[in-house]
Amino acid sequence: MKKVMECKIKLENVEGGVCAAKGFEANGLNCGLNPDKNKNDLGAIFSEKECVTAAVYTQNKVKGAPILVTKKNLEKSKGISHAVIVNSKNANTCNADGEEKAEKMCQLLADELNISKKEVIVASTGVIGQILPIEPIQDSVKDLVKGLSINGNEKAANAIMTTDTVKKEYAVSFEINGKKCTIGGMAKGSGMIHPNMATTLNFITTDVNISQELMQKALSKIVKVTYNCLSVDGDTSTNDMLCVMANGLAENEKITKEDSDSYLAFCKALYTVLMNLTKMLAKDGEGASKLIECTCSGAPDLDTAITVAKSVICSPLFKCAMFGEDANWGRILCAIGYADADFDIDKVDVDIASKSGKITVCKNGSGVEFSEGEAKVILKEEEISILVNLNLGEESAKAWGCDLTYDYVKINGDYRS
Amino acid sequence: MKKVMECKIKLENVEGGVCAAKGFEANGLNCGLNPDKNKNDLGAIFSEKECVTAAVYTQNKVKGAPILVTKKNLEKSKGISHAVIVNSKNANTCNADGEEKAEKMCQLLADELNISKKEVIVASTGVIGQILPIEPIQDSVKDLVKGLSINGNEKAANAIMTTDTVKKEYAVSFEINGKKCTIGGMAKGSGMIHPNMATTLNFITTDVNISQELMQKALSKIVKVTYNCLSVDGDTSTNDMLCVMANGLAENEKITKEDSDSYLAFCKALYTVLMNLTKMLAKDGEGASKLIECTCSGAPDLDTAITVAKSVICSPLFKCAMFGEDANWGRILCAIGYADADFDIDKVDVDIASKSGKITVCKNGSGVEFSEGEAKVILKEEEISILVNLNLGEESAKAWGCDLTYDYVKINGDYRS
Repeated sequence: MKKVMECKIKLENVEGGVCAAKGFEANGLNCGLNPDKNKNDLGAIFSEKECVTAAVYTQNKVKGAPILVTKKNLEKSKGISHAVIVNSKNANTCNADGEEKAEKMCQLLADELNISKKEVIVASTGVIGQILPIEPIQDSVKDLVKGLSINGNEKAANAIMTTDTVKKEYAVSFEINGKKCTIGGMAKGSGMIHPNMATTLNFITTDVNISQELMQKALSKIVKVTYNCLSVDGDTSTNDMLCVMANGLAENEKITKEDSDSYLAFCKALYTVLMNLTKMLAKDGEGASKLIECTCSGAPDLDTAITVAKSVICSPLFKCAMFGEDANWGRILCAIGYADADFDIDKVDVDIASKSGKITVCKNGSGVEFSEGEAKVILKEEEISILVNLNLGEESAKAWGCDLTYDYVKINGDYRS
Repeated sequence: MKKVMECKIKLENVEGGVCAAKGFEANGLNCGLNPDKNKNDLGAIFSEKECVTAAVYTQNKVKGAPILVTKKNLEKSKGISHAVIVNSKNANTCNADGEEKAEKMCQLLADELNISKKEVIVASTGVIGQILPIEPIQDSVKDLVKGLSINGNEKAANAIMTTDTVKKEYAVSFEINGKKCTIGGMAKGSGMIHPNMATTLNFITTDVNISQELMQKALSKIVKVTYNCLSVDGDTSTNDMLCVMANGLAENEKITKEDSDSYLAFCKALYTVLMNLTKMLAKDGEGASKLIECTCSGAPDLDTAITVAKSVICSPLFKCAMFGEDANWGRILCAIGYADADFDIDKVDVDIASKSGKITVCKNGSGVEFSEGEAKVILKEEEISILVNLNLGEESAKAWGCDLTYDYVKINGDYRS
């Protein structure tokens, strides 16, 4: 990852989410699963050209039926996808007829688009354990396909929202060998977020020309330092999925070598999209009022850095202190202390920072004096950084989470006074 | 553990907490660490006879100074203790002078009681990372010792409370070879509870005559299925400690054999005390309105049973559903699914029960129809049981937790409607 992070490729933020890359259309509508007619509950993405596809899925033993069907489809199609169908409000999980319904969703979209069923990615999110009514989807799939458009990204992003309060889209453009390339995506998620291999629902589209093997490799590497470093509440969802569809329409020379500059550029762009979607998910965590980013540097290896950074952002008590804007750094040390990793607690330094400043609260594992007033000013901001230095090595990693709000906080947010 | 659970020894609940067993006195007072003069912040326990002692400590890498000093003392004294000194409001952790202050606390008590300093157990609980003022303790230790009494258990139990809303004491009497024996104890804890080897502060006293080795063995075995199966918020404290002091004044024939009936009886009594204190801790979890007990049966081994039961009671989303009195059993399945254990999710049955009834919500990993009205009646109670059957083997275990209340719940408690 160090090489990727240091790659100096120029990235330009662009609009368009999953429709930002060449050749992708999307749509979303309310088919009636959600009684609120102003909220979309059914979405689709379509690529004019078949896509090589990389995906990661939840590691929960309880897997949503759509996860099982998508996996099977991509196996049958040897990693080729052409379209996505996704619904919210019902996770189609833990139902005896779950796979049958997920298959049916693929069939409905495939028939309407005149593509092969095995090239459809299907996803669902919502309540677990309620039978998915297929009729509303069946009745709406014609309109869904008719409405596909290169401007449909927002409608699709709305269709996958559950308790999310904002749509989550991000896209960047960059050049490979003089060809303009784009990677864009959308994500949903607010609660039940504690990824293991992937999280929530995430659809990434790109026009980059790249081999399937290499794209999967890039995805696995980058998910480890983005989505898998995100936690809202410690619950790993049954329906987590992240897929990247690449249709090659940028017409760059096909990326096939891991040691090529074009692969590095692709990784950096993918990292940027996933990292920004990750931050959006953290910031929109259920009930959250603050985005918390913890950076662990000076680690002997990447895994240690990730483990320590995640341990901090997962601590409910620390999250409450952040809501209370209380520089209760003892809770940070406590969370570092129970991280399952090897380091010397007596070497650990901790700083707290935001755009309003930075203070050191702990040096060599012990507290140092700081101005509580200055701390208050820093913690008043909506984005807080916790900087942990293990002072042992060269590796670093970030993790993202949010504060924990209200009653639990009434008790814990002012524990020191 | 199966043998212990099946042991038919007659146990009688008795009053007196840490003073219930013969030869133990206790006291508690406000020394000024806590500005609220009506709240004790300094406590002591004294045994008229030296005690063999077993203890378990936090596994957090950040260890409170009192933990380090207590460990050292018990090593030096070869597991013999005579008295306990404990304060609340300040954890004396992550301070450069922490060990010095903890040593000083031991010295102050030892001098006043005219006992050896290495026979003092010291513990602190409260804010991490604030210098502990020793003067208030120094000024009050004479009164603390003067007030020691066989009726002082409540004062001591009050002294260790932090955000606890109720005192936690439990004691039982039983017979070994015609001799009346007693085990009693007190516990504190409300947040930062997710034990790993022990939790919170717990002091157990007994007059049973037993070897130190065997008592430590019993403690480790029983902590695994009681305290270590408790979670309030997922944070493992830096100051967790549980110690058992046995002064032998019951004059039973010394327990020295693991296969003896008297050892089984001791284990069953210790289990009963620790299990009941565990439940009290869970019920008084910060902000909690309900005690949740999850029983995992039909497991191939004890560790699997423990892992699954704990996974359920740790799930924030499940905890919110319990607060919302919503039979959202999908969240139970989800939490079982991410438990790090081997089992077949397609064999799992789940029942929800309370004193108002019992319903089956899931058979063979899929939902079954149930009456939502009946579920509401069951979930209205203050103590809820979740019964998970893996249908794979003979082992079972319980775990205890509480619901998660307010804003997070406003969003998640009615997710299905």
